[in-house]
Amino acid sequence: MGSVMLDITMSLDGFVTAPDDRPGRGLGVDGEVLHYWVFGGPWKYEDYERDGEGLKPDAVQLDPADRAVLDEGAHAGAIVVGRRMYDMTDGWGGRNPFGVPCLVVTHRVEDQPDPSAGFVFVDGVEAAIERARELAGGKPIGLGGGASVARQALRAGLVDEIQIHIAPVILGEGRTLFGVLGERVRLERTRVLDSPYATHLRYRVLR
Amino acid sequence: MGSVMLDITMSLDGFVTAPDDRPGRGLGVDGEVLHYWVFGGPWKYEDYERDGEGLKPDAVQLDPADRAVLDEGAHAGAIVVGRRMYDMTDGWGGRNPFGVPCLVVTHRVEDQPDPSAGFVFVDGVEAAIERARELAGGKPIGLGGGASVARQALRAGLVDEIQIHIAPVILGEGRTLFGVLGERVRLERTRVLDSPYATHLRYRVLR
Repeated sequence: MGSVMLDITMSLDGFVTAPDDRPGRGLGVDGEVLHYWVFGGPWKYEDYERDGEGLKPDAVQLDPADRAVLDEGAHAGAIVVGRRMYDMTDGWGGRNPFGVPCLVVTHRVEDQPDPSAGFVFVDGVEAAIERARELAGGKPIGLGGGASVARQALRAGLVDEIQIHIAPVILGEGRTLFGVLGERVRLERTRVLDSPYATHLRYRVLR
Repeated sequence: MGSVMLDITMSLDGFVTAPDDRPGRGLGVDGEVLHYWVFGGPWKYEDYERDGEGLKPDAVQLDPADRAVLDEGAHAGAIVVGRRMYDMTDGWGGRNPFGVPCLVVTHRVEDQPDPSAGFVFVDGVEAAIERARELAGGKPIGLGGGASVARQALRAGLVDEIQIHIAPVILGEGRTLFGVLGERVRLERTRVLDSPYATHLRYRVLR
């Protein structure tokens, strides 16, 4: 059965977005710093918007550590994200970019877009992960956030592995990833990779 | 002039103590996990109390990465800590254990113990760091926390370097290190070391 890996980028002070994150502003005001590691260095939403198709991670020179981590992500058999993240990215422009099924956790499953777009709307994180397992064919499930879905999955004991990409910045405000989860999760660190743009911490959840 | 390094351990979710930290309970209920890296593995407050003198980091087998980080800490010329940390440890049992002057930030400087104990009570984090510089003879200043002093120093722009030791645990509650600092601090990662018990992230503060 495919394991579930929470995989998300945060600042050193635990924020997954800068303030004022909304459609068209993805990670919030000057939040791009969180994803420098994905783009091989500084980039701006303005450029992303202007170029239409956007910056392509494949087209930029990535640090080898960042490249290795991104390439691994491609091994997932299904991706689970929250509705907020889906809305923030405007459904990744209307089409699932992951190459595998993308489950969107939402109470408003009636908003389900045409299946050809590659998204499956599911009510509840447990149901979404269950459906993801059916679709993933034994491959790992990537849980991409946002923070709300991540916390629900952690509390429900549905997360087997955690990979946190820590960007070198204290954002000072934004959306917190863990917040006050209210329960302890013991971890075994299984790997650390790092580049100038992120430190990639990987853990196994101990039960 | 000696640089100021904030040097503190936190959980992956950003807490520097577990709940119910108080004198005799140091890092709070089952908070010892934060400092496994300092003691070469699991330890308990009960043992620390029972042995009187306490566990000695020198006497235990440390991971080489943890050992290297601890040894570096010994190069500081002065240490600055908050009053709360001083009280939590009961003044480290009544005697400064650091081998260099220890400045304690407090509004109640009249509580200053006998100077032979090795502590200097100073009102305000800026004044404490200024005094630390005078006493450190050009060596680095170690800013050891707690969270309140760390945040004050960050906001005042007094921190030159940050070293965060991330323990492999989500505590779920406790005292947050950064909280909502309210301002951004750009960082350059300068080093990553890791062991099974902590990932040591070192950054330079960019101005």
